[in-house]
This record gives sequence, C-alpha cells and structure tokens, in this order.
Amino acid sequence: MVFENFLHGADYNYEQWLDRSDILEKDFFYMKEVKANVMSIGIFSWAMLETDEGQYNFKWLDNLMDRLQANGQKAILATPSGSKPAWMSYKYPEVCRVDEKGIREKHGGRHNHCRTSIVYREKCREMNTLLAKRYAKHPALFMYHVSNEYNGVPCFCDNCVAEFRSWLEHKYKTLDNLNKAWWTTFWSHRFTDWNQIFPNDGSIQGMILDWRRFNSELTINFFNNEIEPLRKYTPNIPITTNFQFPDVWLDYHMFAKKVDVVSWDSYPDWHLYDSEIEEGIKTAFMHDLYRSAKKQPFMLMECTPSSLNWKPQARQKKEGMTELASVQAIAHGSNSIQYFQWRQSRGGEEKFHSAVVSHIGTDNTRIFKDITKVGCLLEKLSVNKKLLSTVDKSDVAIVYDFQNGWAIDGAGLPRNNRKNYQAECIEHYKAFYKKGIQCDIISAELENLSDYKILILPMLYMFPDGTEQKLKAFVEKGGTVVATYLTGTVDSTDLCFLDGTPGNLTDMFGIKVEQNGVIADNEKAEFQYNGKKYNSVDYIDIIQNAGAQVLSKFESPDFLDMPVITKNKAGNGYAYYLTSRNNSDFLKDFYAELCKENNIKSFVNFELPDGVSVQKRGDVKFFMNFGNKEVSLNYEGKEINLKSLGYYIEGID
Amino acid sequence: MVFENFLHGADYNYEQWLDRSDILEKDFFYMKEVKANVMSIGIFSWAMLETDEGQYNFKWLDNLMDRLQANGQKAILATPSGSKPAWMSYKYPEVCRVDEKGIREKHGGRHNHCRTSIVYREKCREMNTLLAKRYAKHPALFMYHVSNEYNGVPCFCDNCVAEFRSWLEHKYKTLDNLNKAWWTTFWSHRFTDWNQIFPNDGSIQGMILDWRRFNSELTINFFNNEIEPLRKYTPNIPITTNFQFPDVWLDYHMFAKKVDVVSWDSYPDWHLYDSEIEEGIKTAFMHDLYRSAKKQPFMLMECTPSSLNWKPQARQKKEGMTELASVQAIAHGSNSIQYFQWRQSRGGEEKFHSAVVSHIGTDNTRIFKDITKVGCLLEKLSVNKKLLSTVDKSDVAIVYDFQNGWAIDGAGLPRNNRKNYQAECIEHYKAFYKKGIQCDIISAELENLSDYKILILPMLYMFPDGTEQKLKAFVEKGGTVVATYLTGTVDSTDLCFLDGTPGNLTDMFGIKVEQNGVIADNEKAEFQYNGKKYNSVDYIDIIQNAGAQVLSKFESPDFLDMPVITKNKAGNGYAYYLTSRNNSDFLKDFYAELCKENNIKSFVNFELPDGVSVQKRGDVKFFMNFGNKEVSLNYEGKEINLKSLGYYIEGID
Amino acid sequence: MVFENFLHGADYNYEQWLDRSDILEKDFFYMKEVKANVMSIGIFSWAMLETDEGQYNFKWLDNLMDRLQANGQKAILATPSGSKPAWMSYKYPEVCRVDEKGIREKHGGRHNHCRTSIVYREKCREMNTLLAKRYAKHPALFMYHVSNEYNGVPCFCDNCVAEFRSWLEHKYKTLDNLNKAWWTTFWSHRFTDWNQIFPNDGSIQGMILDWRRFNSELTINFFNNEIEPLRKYTPNIPITTNFQFPDVWLDYHMFAKKVDVVSWDSYPDWHLYDSEIEEGIKTAFMHDLYRSAKKQPFMLMECTPSSLNWKPQARQKKEGMTELASVQAIAHGSNSIQYFQWRQSRGGEEKFHSAVVSHIGTDNTRIFKDITKVGCLLEKLSVNKKLLSTVDKSDVAIVYDFQNGWAIDGAGLPRNNRKNYQAECIEHYKAFYKKGIQCDIISAELENLSDYKILILPMLYMFPDGTEQKLKAFVEKGGTVVATYLTGTVDSTDLCFLDGTPGNLTDMFGIKVEQNGVIADNEKAEFQYNGKKYNSVDYIDIIQNAGAQVLSKFESPDFLDMPVITKNKAGNGYAYYLTSRNNSDFLKDFYAELCKENNIKSFVNFELPDGVSVQKRGDVKFFMNFGNKEVSLNYEGKEINLKSLGYYIEGID
Repeated sequence: MVFENFLHGADYNYEQWLDRSDILEKDFFYMKEVKANVMSIGIFSWAMLETDEGQYNFKWLDNLMDRLQANGQKAILATPSGSKPAWMSYKYPEVCRVDEKGIREKHGGRHNHCRTSIVYREKCREMNTLLAKRYAKHPALFMYHVSNEYNGVPCFCDNCVAEFRSWLEHKYKTLDNLNKAWWTTFWSHRFTDWNQIFPNDGSIQGMILDWRRFNSELTINFFNNEIEPLRKYTPNIPITTNFQFPDVWLDYHMFAKKVDVVSWDSYPDWHLYDSEIEEGIKTAFMHDLYRSAKKQPFMLMECTPSSLNWKPQARQKKEGMTELASVQAIAHGSNSIQYFQWRQSRGGEEKFHSAVVSHIGTDNTRIFKDITKVGCLLEKLSVNKKLLSTVDKSDVAIVYDFQNGWAIDGAGLPRNNRKNYQAECIEHYKAFYKKGIQCDIISAELENLSDYKILILPMLYMFPDGTEQKLKAFVEKGGTVVATYLTGTVDSTDLCFLDGTPGNLTDMFGIKVEQNGVIADNEKAEFQYNGKKYNSVDYIDIIQNAGAQVLSKFESPDFLDMPVITKNKAGNGYAYYLTSRNNSDFLKDFYAELCKENNIKSFVNFELPDGVSVQKRGDVKFFMNFGNKEVSLNYEGKEINLKSLGYYIEGID
Repeated sequence: MVFENFLHGADYNYEQWLDRSDILEKDFFYMKEVKANVMSIGIFSWAMLETDEGQYNFKWLDNLMDRLQANGQKAILATPSGSKPAWMSYKYPEVCRVDEKGIREKHGGRHNHCRTSIVYREKCREMNTLLAKRYAKHPALFMYHVSNEYNGVPCFCDNCVAEFRSWLEHKYKTLDNLNKAWWTTFWSHRFTDWNQIFPNDGSIQGMILDWRRFNSELTINFFNNEIEPLRKYTPNIPITTNFQFPDVWLDYHMFAKKVDVVSWDSYPDWHLYDSEIEEGIKTAFMHDLYRSAKKQPFMLMECTPSSLNWKPQARQKKEGMTELASVQAIAHGSNSIQYFQWRQSRGGEEKFHSAVVSHIGTDNTRIFKDITKVGCLLEKLSVNKKLLSTVDKSDVAIVYDFQNGWAIDGAGLPRNNRKNYQAECIEHYKAFYKKGIQCDIISAELENLSDYKILILPMLYMFPDGTEQKLKAFVEKGGTVVATYLTGTVDSTDLCFLDGTPGNLTDMFGIKVEQNGVIADNEKAEFQYNGKKYNSVDYIDIIQNAGAQVLSKFESPDFLDMPVITKNKAGNGYAYYLTSRNNSDFLKDFYAELCKENNIKSFVNFELPDGVSVQKRGDVKFFMNFGNKEVSLNYEGKEINLKSLGYYIEGID
Repeated sequence: MVFENFLHGADYNYEQWLDRSDILEKDFFYMKEVKANVMSIGIFSWAMLETDEGQYNFKWLDNLMDRLQANGQKAILATPSGSKPAWMSYKYPEVCRVDEKGIREKHGGRHNHCRTSIVYREKCREMNTLLAKRYAKHPALFMYHVSNEYNGVPCFCDNCVAEFRSWLEHKYKTLDNLNKAWWTTFWSHRFTDWNQIFPNDGSIQGMILDWRRFNSELTINFFNNEIEPLRKYTPNIPITTNFQFPDVWLDYHMFAKKVDVVSWDSYPDWHLYDSEIEEGIKTAFMHDLYRSAKKQPFMLMECTPSSLNWKPQARQKKEGMTELASVQAIAHGSNSIQYFQWRQSRGGEEKFHSAVVSHIGTDNTRIFKDITKVGCLLEKLSVNKKLLSTVDKSDVAIVYDFQNGWAIDGAGLPRNNRKNYQAECIEHYKAFYKKGIQCDIISAELENLSDYKILILPMLYMFPDGTEQKLKAFVEKGGTVVATYLTGTVDSTDLCFLDGTPGNLTDMFGIKVEQNGVIADNEKAEFQYNGKKYNSVDYIDIIQNAGAQVLSKFESPDFLDMPVITKNKAGNGYAYYLTSRNNSDFLKDFYAELCKENNIKSFVNFELPDGVSVQKRGDVKFFMNFGNKEVSLNYEGKEINLKSLGYYIEGID
C-alpha cells in the first residue's frame, strides 16, 4: 500500500466515554496537539455494536467516524472479533474454546473464541458485512485492523479435532503415509482409523507439529473468513491485523502474505537492565522480521506511551526513550507510530496501562509532551515522500522459521533446558547489528535467495522439502551459507535424516554429524580463531570430516581437536558449519571476516561505539544511542553527538 | 463479654480416646497440673455426634462436659461444621464445593463445604439446635466456638453463582449500573442478562472484587445461620469463632461485629530467622488488629506448644519462647492463651503437630513444663481484675483494609511483583512499635476517627464511599493524615478517579498524582530528610504540586527533584503524602517527628534497644526482649534486665 | 536362573525398519561386531502384532526370531502391554486411566493403562498366550521381558476404586477396624459405608498409604495375569520385567519375589557434576538394592550408549565411561549389559536417545567402538563360569523400604522440606562403600537377618508388624542395630506409637524419644566424636535417656548436652541410636569403629583414595576410579594404576 504520511495515532475507545461529552471534546482537541492523523477504533466493540443478538447500534461509531474526519484524521477500523460479547457465549456456548481435558471454557477474557465454530464465523461475517457496507463511502475509512492480536492457541472441541483430522487426511491421503511420517511404530502408536487421532499426545512429536501448523493455518483461515465481506464491499481499503511478539503459535511469515501491510505491537522491557542495548537489539530484530516479511514498510500498530500493567514490572519510560524507540521503528522500516492507548480506561484489566491521556485528564504531563515531540518529528519526516516508500535491500539473510521453532520446542534432545532458538537467531543478528549491517529475517521457505550474499541458518533443525535444492543452488551461484549445530536434523515431518546430517547436504558442507552432543554447564569448550580465544556452550555437534577445511579446533581436554568451524567450497560459493553455540563476541569477529570476503559494508566506515546503532533507509541515515553514555561520532567529516537515549537523523533537512 | 480470669486451655479431642480410659484419666490430671481452666471441645466431632443421618450420640460429650465441670474447668463448645461427615457428602454431594471448571470436589479435607447448600445449612441448624438445647443448663458451658477457621474460598456451584447474581442485582439494581461500575465496555464485556455473569473472569476486576466481597459476606451469613439456634436457646452464652492469619478472603473487620468476642489462631515462624524481632513485630500487628476490631480484649484461641507439622520447617520452641509469646499476647490485649492441641493425635494429618501432652504421654517433657509456667503466670495475672477488662486507647490508627487488599491483589499495576500490601502496613506499624507507641489497626470504614491524632493510610488504593468526607472532617478538626503512593486511586467499584488522585482530596493534600510509577529493581532513588540519607524502592507516584510544602526531593538522577514527602495544611490539621515506598528506618524518623508535633508519647521515655518491645495495658506495663542479646533498661529509676526471649511485667505484684 | 554367558544386547525395534531391508541387514552384521548375544524385542509392538482387533501379524516377529537364531543370538521376548494400541483405546475407552478429578485420559503416551480393566487384562492374556504358544519351541526364545517399566501410578476409575474398597474390606474386615487404623475420628473423617471411601484425601494419611500399597500390589497382580499363559505354555522360560530407578510407587522388594531374575534400567547423570564419584555411589547403591532383592545375580536391562533425550541435560559419555559403568554393574552382581537402544528411531519421542547404531548408520562412531570394547570384555569375563553364578554375602544390611518411604512422603512433620529418605539411606551406604565393604539393601520385612552382623535402620519411621520381635532376636544373638531419628515412630497403619519411640523398643535402645525436632537451616548443631568435630542438620530427636551410654553430646548452645549417639547393650548385641542427621564424614568414622568391633573388613587393607571403588565377586576383584585423577594402588604387593574413569579386574587372567 502507499503511505502519504507517517502515521501517528492510538487505539481509541470512544465508546467508553459516551456519557462524558466533555471528555470526548477534549480528546479531539488533544489529538490535534499531538498531531495524530489516525485512530484505531472499534477494536473490542462488539457488545456496543450489537447489544443483543440482531440489535445493532452503529450510531456512536457513525459519530466517531464523522468527528475523526472533521478533525482531520483517518480511521483504522477494527473488526470486533477479538472479544465475543457475553450474550453470544451465553446463547451459543460453542463459540468458547474447549481445553485438553474436554472442558469448555466459561465466557471471559478475550482472544479465546473457537475458530471452527460455525456460529462465530457466521456472526463475524455478518458483523463485518455491516461494517464494510456502512462505511464503504465514508471519507475517514482508511484501513482495516482485523480482529486483534490473533493467536494459535488450540481449542480441543469435537469440531476442531474433526477439522484437524480432515486436514491430516488431505495432507497424508492414507493412514499408512501418516503412520510413516509420524513414525508411529515407536511406542505402538499406529493409527488404524482417522478418528483415533486426538492431538494431545506429546510423545508423537510429528502429530504435535502438525497440530501447531493446523492451528496456525486455522487462524489464517479464520482471518480469511473475516475479510471476505471487507474485500467484497470495500476492495480498495487496505487490510492489516496486528501481529505480536512472535511467540503465539502463529507462522507470521505465512500470515504476512495475506495482509496488505504488516503491522505489529511492540512492548520491550525498557529500563529493567543495566542499559537499553540488549532490548534495543531484540526490538530491532523484531522490526526487521516484520520488514522482511513483505520487504515493504510496516506499521508499528501498538507501543506504550510509558509503562504497562501486565508484566511483573514495567518502568515508566525515561526521558528520550519514547522518541528513541520511535526513531528506531522508523529506521527499520515502520511507517507509523501508534500507541495503546489514547486515553486510560477508568476500569477493567488495563486501566493502569499508560496512555497518551492519563487519568489526570490533561495535556500537562510528561507523557503527553513526549508524544507531542514524536508527532512533530513524524510530521517533519513526512515531507520526504521517498522515505515513506523505501526500505533498503539486505545482503545478509538470517533464517528464523516459526515451524522450525515448534519442531525444536517439541523435540526431546540431549539438552532440553537451554534450547533458546529465538535467542540464538538474535545472537547471530547481533553480530551484524553491531557492525551497522542490515539483515533480513526470512523463513525456511528460502524465497528470493538471489537477493543475498550470505545466508545464515542458526539451528535450522528442520528442513522443509526442497531445502537441499535451494541451498545448493544458492551456493552453486557463489553464495555463502553458514549453518550451525542441529541444522538439517529432521525433514518436514520431523523424521531424522539418515546417512548423516545436515540432511542431504553432507557433500556441500564436507562434513557429517556423527552425534548431537552437549557442552554441560560449567564445562569448558575453548578454542582460538584468528588468535583470539573463545568458549562454546550448551550444544556441540560431533562431526566427521569429509573434506572440509577446519578453521578452528577445540583446545579443552574434553573436546580436544574436535572441529569448531568448518568451511567447504561448493560450486562458486562456500558452506560453513559452526559445530557449537557461541556468543556474539565470536560471531561478530567471524561474520566480520565473511563480510569482508563478500564485500558487504555498512554505510558507516568506523567501528560503532558500544550501544550505538545505525540504520539506513534510502538516503536517510539514523544514528541512535541505546547506551548509558554520551558518544561522539565522526561521520563523513561531521561530528555527531549522541547523548544517552539520543538520536540523530541525517538527510531530512 | 466479661472475663473473670485469664483463660488457659487447648483444643481437646476427647472423642479420639474413648477406648483408652487410662489416657482420659491422665488428661484431667494433667490439665490441673498446667492450671487449665478451659478446653475447646467438639471442634471436628460431627461424625461422632451424628454417626449416620439422624443417629445421634451425645453421650461421650455429656461425659466430657461433666468431667470438665468436675475438674474445675469450663467448656468452649464448638459447633462441628468445620468438617462435614462422610455419610453426608455421600448422601448429599451438594454439600461439597465445585471448582472453577465445574467439577465437584470429592469428600475429604475440611473447611470445604458449600455455603449455599440448603442441606448443609439445615443440618447445621439441626445440630446446633441439639447442642444448644442439650447443654443450655450445663454449668460447664462457657462459650461457643462456632465452626473452625472459616474462610472465604469460593464454591462455583450453580447455587452459589445464582446467589451471587441475586446479590449483584440487589446491589446494582440494573445491569446498566453494573456495566458502568465494572466498566464492561472495555474488552466487550457488557452483560445483557444477569445469567451471563460467571465469576471466573479475572479481567473484570470489579466483578472479582464483588465476588470476594460476596464470598466473605456469604461466610458471615453462613455463620449467622449457625448461631441462630444458639442465640435462641442459650442467649447468654457468648459466641466467638476463631479467626486466622488474615489472608483467607474474609473481611474480619466486618465479621468481628458479629461475634461477642474476637478470637484468633496465631502461628508465627519462630526461630527460622536471625532473631525473633521481625516475627515479633508481625505478631504484635496481628494482635493489635484483633484488639482494634472491637477495641476490647480478645482471645488467643490457638497457638502451638512447640512445633508444627504443616509448614516447610517449624522449629520446636526454644527456652523462653512459649512464655514470651504468651506475655506478648496478653500485653496486646488477649485474655487467653490456648493451644492447639491438648494431646497429640495418634493418626491423621496433624499427628506431629505438637501438643501439651506428647505421644510419649507423660508430664515429664520440656513442653509440658513450659505450658505449666504459662499457667502459673496467668493465674497470677488473674488477680488483677482491672487488667482483664482493660485495653488502652491509641492516638494513632493505621488503616489495613481487607477489601482494599483484594482490590490491590486483583489490579494490574505498572509493578505487580512486589505489591506486598500487608507488609507495607506492618512497615508503618513498625515505626511506632519501635518507639513503644501503641497503634490501632482499623478498616477503611474509618469509624470513630475522633479517637485519633494521627491517621495513616498506607497504599489505601480504594476509597469506599464517604472516604473524602471522613478524612476532610478529621483533618478539619486538627487531625494529621498520612497517605502514600497509590492512595485514593479507585472508588469502591474499582473505577479510577479522574481529575487527579488522591481521589477528590487533591485540595486537601495540595498535590495531584500525574502517574503511578515504578522504581525498578536495583535502581537508586535517594533522598535526604533532616540530614539523613534514605533510598526508596518499588513504587513512586509522580506528582504535580498544587500548593503543598515539599519536605524532601529525590537526588538520584532518574528521579531528580521529584517530591518524596509533601505536607499541606488543611483546616486545623495536616495532610502528608509519601510518594514512594520506604523502609521502617525512614518511617521511624518521619513518624517520630509527627509524634513530637502531636504530643504523642510512649510510657517509656528512653530509646528502646533493638528487639525490645514495651506495651501498656492499664496500669500494667510489659517489657519484652525478642532480640538475641540480654539488655538492661532503666525504667523510672529501676533497672530491668531482660535476657534474650525474656520479659518483665511491672504492676502486678 | 543359570547364566551361561554374560549377556550383551539391546532393545531392538526391528519392526520400525521393515521397509528397509538394507538397514536390517546391517543390523545383524553390526550385532556380531559388538559381540551381542541377546536382543530385547517386541517391547512396544502391540500395534504391529495385532493391527486391529483380532487381526494378527506375527510374520515379522517370526523372521526376527529366526534371524537372531541364525546370527547366534537369543531373544529376550517382551510382552507388548507397555503401550496399548490406539484401536483398543478407541473401541474400549476403559483401558485408559481416569484422573483424580474423574476425567478419563485420552489415548497417548505409554505405561498408562488401567490395571483393573477387564478388557485390557483379557487382551493381554490373549496376546501373551499367542506369543507363548507360537514361540514355545523356538530355539531363540531365551527369556521373557514382561511389559516394560511398570509403575504404581493410580487410576481413579470406578472399577479401580471399587477394587480398592474390596482390598480394604479384605484387609480390615470391619469399618470399625479401618476407622481405628486410619484414626478417622480426627477431622470427622469416620466412614460408615465402604462406598464413602475415595482415595484422594491427603489428610487421611493411612488411607493414602493403603492406596499406594494397593496400587503397587495391583501392578504385581496385573503382572501375574500377564505371566499366567507364559508359565502355562513355556514353563521353562525365565521371566523378568525391567525395574526402574526406584521412585515409581512400586514395592520392588515385593515385586522381586515374583520374577525369576531381577533386571533394571539404569540412567545416572554422568558428567554433570564435578566428578563421577557421587553418581557412582548412587548407582552402586541401586545395583546392590537389586542384587539384594534375590541375593542373586541380576541383569542390567537398559542403560544408554551415550546421551539421553528426556532430561534437562544429558551429556554424551566421555572416554571410558561406558566401560567403567559396565564394569561397575558386573562388579555389583549384574550378569548383563544391555542398552536402550540398538538403533536410533527416525521419529517419535526418543529419536535422540543415543543408540549403539546412530542415525548416521555406520559402525564408525565413538559410541560403536565403546560398545564393542564392552562386548569384548564380557566375552572375556564369560570364561569364568563361577563368576557368573556368584554374588558375595554381606555382613552389613541397610534397610531401605519402599512402604516406609511412602509413609514418610505422606507424613506432615515438623520439617517437610528436606525429608530425603532415599538420600539418607545412600549416605549410610556411602560410609561402607568408601571403606570397600559390601552392604545388602533390604526391606523392612527383615528377612534372613542372621546373615548379618550389623543392621542399619536409617529413618525407619514405620515398623511393620513383627519388627520389634525380629530386631530383638537379632540383637539378642549378638547383632548390632543402628537406628536414627524418626525410627519406629508409627506402626504399619501409620499410627504413632505411644509410650515412647522407637516403638516398643525403648528398652532395647535404652532411650525414649520425647519429641521429633528440627535443626533449622543455618543453625549450628555441633558435636565431637573421637576427638573430631561434626555438625548435624535438618532433624533431631530430643530423647530421654533410660539407661543408654551417651557416646557424644551436642556442644552448640541451642542443643547443649543433648545426646547425639547412644549405645545400649541388649542380650549379646548392641543397639545404637543416632538422634540427628549427619553426613557421610561422620558416618564413615562411626561405622569404621563398628566394623572394627564386629570384625568386618574389606578385601583390601588400605585406605581407598577418593573416588576409588573396590568390589569383590567370588575370586574376582574389581578396582574402579570414578575420580578425576589418576591413582596408584598397592594391592597385595602389586601396583595398580587407575586413570580417571579407568578400572582394573583382578582374577580373570
């Protein structure tokens, strides 16, 4: 989609204040003060839109749309399915989920509807049809925000389980195929009737993996059901749904293909650690994940103006943090900064989640002033239309694959207490971040590999069908692949590759993994690389060399002479294997070397001081300081001073 | 009620030993040895009193009553509802509770009956009628001990939930009122039929708060049902029920109004920490809570003779501890020292809970000798009849409110991992305890405020209706109010005050709270007060000054210049606000100042050495040493030596 | 049973590879390489043997039996009941267990059938009949491996609960007896109808203990049902079932009487601690437990070739560990070394459990070479036929009783957070292990006491009927008994002994326990013995001396002068009482003294260096080093060098 401006806005719960016209009045005034140009509305409004079955009340929403328009703002209109109304659960209990024991949940909470419920699907279509038809011509209608924070948490009702069985039948055709794929001869788990399958047996890991996939796809399918009327009656209105921190059992890479623009909700733990450096890196990774999903600008749909109410502790943001976090999002490809929430609720679960307008009700607060600064900045940036449509290409891609994560999660490994798949991907990412080099974060589908020079597969335990061919072709043409311990261990049905791993690529890597091993806690596994000393932890693959060059070997007695890093020429490219887990100190040095060989450079030509992040988007360059100390940079002859939590943007003046 | 002597006694399970007349014989002999004048009997005796439905056996209880009388003792007769008999659960499963998932509990445990069960209520009335009529004229009948350790743990059966809905209808009249009070527009939680309400949705915090209140009231209502026949047939026999450490979802302030005398069960963790000082303070607080509940002497209904069997570890009491803990109870207003239990059971859950008579079965044990010493002391104290009817008035009241605790418990705050409401109240209490100044512990109903000079509201998050008026009137007349962070945040339905907090009292305090903030772990928040340095933790309210005098500001960079303590003159009094959480070091210094200004003094005029507690009850003064070291005091020219765990009582010789 | 050779083998899942004849071919070749002479087969094969109800397929098993025979190997044939097939759970849901809440488990996992299910029992008999008849004459049939890793985990279905009630009726005859035994007058728990009993009330500890016993016996009863057809059709084939690490709610002492040979599965945590010394001791204890169960050679049915997949971390075995652990098993009485598993599965729960043949599929791996070394060693040892039939007698017996463990587990004690019954037994065992003196580990049935000179009762809380008589007789004849804190506290129904403990043996010990006490964390409880200083922890019995000699008293203030060790002459023997918990430093010194007095010696006459274990089996002597350092021993004039994880065997050349 095309953005005309950077968006600035918030979730707005107008309907909570219908009896307080004074407050509503102030809201619209304050929105102009912070230069808000959008509001996300109607997110949990079902009970206010359909007060009882078939009894509709759109008047307040009509008014809200009109007032936004009059106020110079646009509406990001939500469909209300994130929270079903109580009358519906009461009349149709089937809209509530059933747990693993077979007990149906009582009404309550949110995001907990059964996704196969015919009633709920039909109700959603009806509601969305009414919304789309009603506001099709409304000038304020800018975008749809479908439902809210979908997840892949399963429901075990008869209907969901039956759908899963059909899904399996479609996938495997015969029970024989399924039994083979799930290796059910182990522990006498062979199925002889589709109806025998019930997805709660953690010992059939292939089944649980398929159950995760099914639930992720079912959510996307539910989303498809929701958007059908929207597409029909308002084909030109772009559609998004707000993604979350990616640990909610959804394959967001798959989901991203279905939305017009990716948006997500970012809630880092600022100010709880020695500095903001590590949270900054983690957040950057997530931004890049969502930027890479469509290789287009994305939206920051939610972040908090200050503190949260649903964590053990969430400190109010310090001076500068709101701006810095906003600049970071923009730098990594966001075209919006939006908040949860515009105004603090008086009651309910999140009444102490901070908001642009606090309970005190005035614009004379630190928060309000911080948000106003962001509004001004976005207005200034919006002048640069090219910036709005640009995200830079990357030379480096890191594979972070959701289904691979689920497979690792379900696996019983020699070491189970420190799997940390996501953290390991971020550790590799960090090596480039600290060099000022942008990475894409891609799925194991390995699409458009030709864009990249270096492709990194941290813990890519599971190889989807076709992985070998894609990797071989990439290396053949001169690409550099880096794999780690556990890579290529199982195929897409969680069956182990025989005859050596990485599966079907032992020639390419010039090695075979003999055993997946453990470096025990407190055990030393030291090695040297380019004259520097490092220590590996947690995991080690014990390999047999089959022609690879060994770049480093362990020196600690218990792992003496075992290879740490191997390199193998294949076609015009190289395949590296890192047999053990290493921290970013080593990875930074290792990848620095590879970048040099592949002529990959940052736009800055100096070593970044600790805590400093740089990012480029077209002609605009961003310099950010997540550290505690003021630093001074010399960029192309210009001195840039960044105080702690400060930033500088080059190329917008 | 009027006490003629200090009571000394124990829970006595006579019915467990009916086939061992030799043991029963010894019991009565030993009771005389320890100078026991009461026994609590029949506490869990239903199965022995009504062996099957309608088959009664009171003979053993007749005998027991007669033998107590003959032995010069009185009976504190329990109603047996604390544990329902197995035949009843078997015949009427509805007497058992239902869990949140809808599964009815199997028979077992204790204190787990459904309080709306018509059958159980009727059975209790029948049983209590039989007891009251049978022993109405018995000379040993001294007091009723209704049921045992009631709690407010909910049952989710259809009947309880239906009663809750009626309770709500009575309270809110219309669903519109309820929806507004619970702010159900948030997350689409509006109810359109009373039957849609099911109290398991933690995200509707107003509902959960009401559910807590309902269950607390339901327990009191159940108690009322139990006492009706007792009042009818034995109107002159006083009634109590044993309260517990106050974390069992009961509003004991409300409950206390229904009993003739407050009694409670005290089980501190003696000997598990460096010294007994902190446990001593906590226990003193609880004694004062129960003394303040009726501003009358209370009873210590249970304590352990030595160790317990239901904690991770419970060390046997050291030399002196039994006496010291007994003296402490008396000093704070108790008119009894009673033990669980007289004789150790041979079997069952608590067979290793210590008892006056141990399994070894003789009077030749350390425990027995300790108990005998207490018996002698109580006999000596009983000579002073004035002491028996006296509790001293306090100049200082600390509000510790159960419903406020439940509201805080349910709230989602910027910081949730260190709420510690009770501990915070004790921290304020400790400041006075260490000065030898008695405090009352009162509810947020704020009754009889004119008794006090200083009123302290630690974390009084929730303001019941009328709070503003009562506080204003108190200050107007010259009272001093001290409030802390989070005070006055929500009204009685858990709705946040708008326009600044403390709710409706921003003028009185001369401040407005802009934001409820967090001091993160390891973060420094230092300030000075009267030249001394302190550090705040966990919570901070960021305030806007509206006329108050700022007595201290933070000096740490992240909170620089934010007010720590504000003071505002209002009418003839003062309103203080402590914006952050502080330990008792600061509080002691702060309140010392306030006491001086308000002319509040201890009866001792010297600084108390660490670990020493002093308490006054009429003309009698108690000096107690909970520390590890012997100390020497000079009280009115007299030298008082207190060894570790020693005590001295002035005014009984 | 008679062993002709030491057995070497593994669990072999032939049926998982029926479509890979190349792999099967290799398997038989590799088996010869590692000198395997047995394979455990058919363990979880029900779904492959009876593919749907009444549809049998034994062909693959016929082939496997034939091929083993042809390959010079024998079959340890399993019955497949360890995992029920899905078609059976689907058709007869009653074969699945029911949980405490009354919810029936879905099909899945393993080892989770209902043991009272008539259908499942009948199906097992049918299956086992077919197996026994079919292979009765097959020359490869060597032994039965009935089911797999039975456990005593309860099922709460109506049928199991009804059986429990019958079991109780059989045991107690009348409800009066039962009520007395369970002390149900406490908390009004009296039962007046057998049907009122439901075994989920943890507060009736006698009931829970009986429920544990019932479930253990029910498992043995289920086993008896399984073996009936085996005994009938193949009376000469020995029967075993693989026991586990003994914490699965089974009384293995009782179970052992029903098998022809004891076998067990050993999975220590090698390489996770500073050295292998402590794991070595724990494993030795378990070996001795299973050796003592029948005082015959046992079998090591399962151990891992390298790492595991079901623990938080399980490090691959270091150089030497596989051999050392194998030698240890043999030294302690095992006649077999068998592995789980022969070949790694491609899929399923345990695909990363290591195997003799790894996924890489070759014999060129560290694991394969280690296993081959063990095969060669076993071949060499097999020459010594006397060794095969010998286990040495012990002078010392330690009582480690399963039912006692359950009773302690259920008890509410003054200290509940460090009960550690098994660990305490091992601590006493360790004192002898470090001296090179073999101990038997026996049950509280105290059978064949006349074999022993010293009998140790660590924490023998529960005395089965007859304990007094047996202990008295033993001491009378000159035996030495050592008891500790908590010994003789309750009788077999968990009723406390009155009149002093150890129950009915206060004369023999010359003491009475006044109170079971606690040594709190961080508290000092120091004493001296033979001039050395020690410190007790966790538990202390406060005793009254009734004639015993006090060998040591506490010197720490809080326990000053309380006895630590008492000794009493009784008949021709001595009864010692250790009032507190001590570590093996003290125990080693204490027992060294007792051994000297009783003329008990190791076959080596020197002090063992740290980490070294010695063991004798007939004429063969084993020297093993579990420490990190190489050590040198001088044994009968011969220098023996043991490197870390090395061993030496004397008497086989």
